[in-house]
Amino acid sequence: MSPSEDGLPTDYEIAQDVDTDHITEIVEPLGLAADDLELHGDDTAKLTYDAIERLRESDRDDGDVILVTGMTPTPMGEGKTVTTVGLSQAFNQLGENALAAIREPSLGPVFGVKGGAAGGGYSQVLPMEEINLHFTGDLHALTSAHNLISTMLDNHIKQGNELDIAVNRVQWPRAMDMNDRVLRETVVGLGGEVTGVPREDGFILTAASEMMAVLCLADDLADLKERVGRIIVAYDEDGDPVTADDIEATGAVTILLKDALKPNIVQTVEGTPAFVHGGPFANIAHGTNSLIADDAARKLSDYLITEAGFGSDLGAEKFMDVVCRLGDMEPAAVTVVASIRALKYHGKDMWPADLDALDDPDPEAVEGGLENLDAHVENLRGFGVPVVVALNRFPGDTDEEVDVVLDHCREELGIEAAESTVFEEGGVGGTDLAEKLVTAIETNDETFDYLYEADAPIPEKIETIATEIYGAESVSFQSGARDDIERMNDLGFDDVPIVISKTFHSLSDDAEKKGVPTGWELEIQEIYPSAGAGFLVALTSDVLTLPGLPSDPAAADMDIDPDGTVSGLF
Amino acid sequence: MSPSEDGLPTDYEIAQDVDTDHITEIVEPLGLAADDLELHGDDTAKLTYDAIERLRESDRDDGDVILVTGMTPTPMGEGKTVTTVGLSQAFNQLGENALAAIREPSLGPVFGVKGGAAGGGYSQVLPMEEINLHFTGDLHALTSAHNLISTMLDNHIKQGNELDIAVNRVQWPRAMDMNDRVLRETVVGLGGEVTGVPREDGFILTAASEMMAVLCLADDLADLKERVGRIIVAYDEDGDPVTADDIEATGAVTILLKDALKPNIVQTVEGTPAFVHGGPFANIAHGTNSLIADDAARKLSDYLITEAGFGSDLGAEKFMDVVCRLGDMEPAAVTVVASIRALKYHGKDMWPADLDALDDPDPEAVEGGLENLDAHVENLRGFGVPVVVALNRFPGDTDEEVDVVLDHCREELGIEAAESTVFEEGGVGGTDLAEKLVTAIETNDETFDYLYEADAPIPEKIETIATEIYGAESVSFQSGARDDIERMNDLGFDDVPIVISKTFHSLSDDAEKKGVPTGWELEIQEIYPSAGAGFLVALTSDVLTLPGLPSDPAAADMDIDPDGTVSGLF
Repeated sequence: MSPSEDGLPTDYEIAQDVDTDHITEIVEPLGLAADDLELHGDDTAKLTYDAIERLRESDRDDGDVILVTGMTPTPMGEGKTVTTVGLSQAFNQLGENALAAIREPSLGPVFGVKGGAAGGGYSQVLPMEEINLHFTGDLHALTSAHNLISTMLDNHIKQGNELDIAVNRVQWPRAMDMNDRVLRETVVGLGGEVTGVPREDGFILTAASEMMAVLCLADDLADLKERVGRIIVAYDEDGDPVTADDIEATGAVTILLKDALKPNIVQTVEGTPAFVHGGPFANIAHGTNSLIADDAARKLSDYLITEAGFGSDLGAEKFMDVVCRLGDMEPAAVTVVASIRALKYHGKDMWPADLDALDDPDPEAVEGGLENLDAHVENLRGFGVPVVVALNRFPGDTDEEVDVVLDHCREELGIEAAESTVFEEGGVGGTDLAEKLVTAIETNDETFDYLYEADAPIPEKIETIATEIYGAESVSFQSGARDDIERMNDLGFDDVPIVISKTFHSLSDDAEKKGVPTGWELEIQEIYPSAGAGFLVALTSDVLTLPGLPSDPAAADMDIDPDGTVSGLF
Repeated sequence: MSPSEDGLPTDYEIAQDVDTDHITEIVEPLGLAADDLELHGDDTAKLTYDAIERLRESDRDDGDVILVTGMTPTPMGEGKTVTTVGLSQAFNQLGENALAAIREPSLGPVFGVKGGAAGGGYSQVLPMEEINLHFTGDLHALTSAHNLISTMLDNHIKQGNELDIAVNRVQWPRAMDMNDRVLRETVVGLGGEVTGVPREDGFILTAASEMMAVLCLADDLADLKERVGRIIVAYDEDGDPVTADDIEATGAVTILLKDALKPNIVQTVEGTPAFVHGGPFANIAHGTNSLIADDAARKLSDYLITEAGFGSDLGAEKFMDVVCRLGDMEPAAVTVVASIRALKYHGKDMWPADLDALDDPDPEAVEGGLENLDAHVENLRGFGVPVVVALNRFPGDTDEEVDVVLDHCREELGIEAAESTVFEEGGVGGTDLAEKLVTAIETNDETFDYLYEADAPIPEKIETIATEIYGAESVSFQSGARDDIERMNDLGFDDVPIVISKTFHSLSDDAEKKGVPTGWELEIQEIYPSAGAGFLVALTSDVLTLPGLPSDPAAADMDIDPDGTVSGLF
């Protein structure tokens, strides 16, 4: 969330004002001792492998998983992380034992658009500065691990290319945790024979790397190493896959990730423990924090509040069909974050977004945008999970606008909805939502199920997601994608879940279309295996794996005083 | 140092065997409290800015600085870091209060040639695994800070190029902490208008970035910010410099470095506190750990043992002429590390190095190599500092070979020399060296002075270093370098020290020439300002700013067990 413009203290001011407890004290009520932690300063720790193993082996029941997702957001986001953090605080206000689990921010966006990714207002995780910058170095470790593969791959080619790698069929780009658009398409290896073999290459954002997905899905070091070894980095001249193992990168890459796999624990402004670990984007990857953090957190709490990126079409669908399937987990309930701003954005069918034009009260526009919310609610109900709408109320929202939404949910959708004011009020602003979620869980008589069977044919899986979740009328496959499907079948990747890479600006694959676009066709351009992660990625158009900075990047307004006080970051 | 092949435990085994004390206990005898530290696990901490400030303001005398440098090394290195760490332990064995200050390893070399950069044997700093991998993330922060400038620069060009930056006169490459040779020469910005403006670009190793030099020379956050702002990133179409400040990167870059500037404290295997902070290479940058670590360490100890990269021609010359000048510091004594292996390498005039061929006893070859050691000793005496030779004794060295060196130093050079067996024995193996250094300091009647005046003309400064230190007969300037000198004069960079970038394989600029090459001409190809660091860099041929991996990289033999035990790293 951004700094406040309405007299509230900024996120940074709120964070500075909190007198945090030492992280060992924060986790002590969970049954974790100082020995279970590796400290990074006073406020941050990594959970040791021994502690994770002990928790896994304990016979304590897993806590209920509550997933926080959203409607199709404006470019500013609708406060999903705020709601996740606030809701964990709200449960604790009610005397329940709850934890939050969210993703680690990527540095790329931090320097682009103003606003951190550690929640906001009175629902943020601390130390927010560190979390938004280098934190415990996990993203840097991932970048290094990713690029070590690239380095060893090109070194193999240069040193004689014993594996007969086809230089125009390298699948493994380079990675950087920076929104550096000129690296999207490059030529490397120029400068003559000593510099290696020239070829086209490109960089992706670290959050979009398969390495991030691998980290977020690995059980432990042994599983991580297996997954790393399976990664397909290229094809040889015969068309056979070349893996990270083939180029002898497995061990060294896993060594680089040995600490990054340990979940990070911090605290919210109200002292609720929170896991912040792993950060794949939901438009180009699976979009939720690490399974290893979820595993530990479920054993430590009665309610685990976790977040999936963007709308139900992206993060939530992947959470259900990929993460829950691979991690043997299921959500007890889902809350869909809506905002008056986003509803008006859809009601006005606005593109590009003009956020200022959404400030004025406009109940009719809100009404007009409800169809987008409805579609997300229906998407989620399809998984057999109870749904409660969380209306993240902003200061300028009118009662009339709010009532439009709450009444609609209860009367038209037949589900509960609650205002959330956790940004301004912290946990107490979310107790109504928490109570409604508890009721929804307790009265639920449906059974969770995946959207598709993993062993369905690849085109069928994609068509199911496209038509049932995105609302597409049909799916077309470009000729390259058809070849890809054939190759995936040949390679035995026909029985794994699918991660569709799609814009987050619309339920459809066209960022300009608001509301619930109908009568459109989803075009699949390319399909490739994330063999280490254990899913296939289907690329549509219009998704950047390496964003750029805007004309007036947030970085240009950042500053730091001699005493270390930063400004412009939040 | 590498794993032992002679029955000694490996570095890793020795490290695992040490029962380290908590870092707060290690620094307590120095007068540092837990509040002065930011913990990174139990064994590593960063010193807070408050503690640094308090130390600076204290009226305690600065400890004596002992610089460890070396003769022209074999590609394996002659044990300079081992000697530095061992010597600090030796002083403490003698009841003196000593600290070590060394550089942080770069990930690049770690994956190339087997062997860590945290000392070795019974003279290493711990936790050696972490120090050789991500450590406290300083190198990663530097990489991000470096690349944020690149990103903002290309974004500025793409977003209208208000500053009129000449795309073929961008001075700021990209950086990576990985020996990824295909990134040396690239083309970026391909893919059409949305991706920015295509141009030639290249990556350098993070350790070679001006950002590293800036960090290692900055006094505090305010000074760091000033230095960052001054960095020249490009020239505009009129030929005027464009700085990091001009592209509005100063604040955000400094924010990324706000923790990296805090010195890291660890312990040696004998519990001697050690600073490990900053890591510029001495062949392409100034080659010593951070001044801020030296400043703090001098206030905390009676003897600070610090290390300069490669031979006296590279790290030590830069330490004297650049670091001491900019940091207002002077060395009390210097020890030159020699090895029987390196002496034979020069005596046999061997190129490329065949390390196996240096195993057999050969006193004559040792004798033949002494001229190289002599040249380094003379180089250092020229600065008016007492010199003691440290013969780093390896297990296979014979007494006869060792005596050749010790006798020569005493009889021919008139200086003291001591065997050092700190690798095998720890501190007790260096007490003779330590005692001789104390005597040398106490009986010294010379006065330290720089080699050249900072305000001498640029060609004269370069010629002085080339002829008096490298032993060149003359210096030639390529036409581009002549233009550079003119521009540097115009820009007012005529009164700063010089960092010559030169191969470390020879005293000359030709890696193949061993011993003391004579009758050669140093060719300067390019001169550019490191305006943030405060010196000029003069490039000669044959220096790689981004090394590559060998045909059988160390990374390929690395592994990690499910319990986290790593192998192949050391």
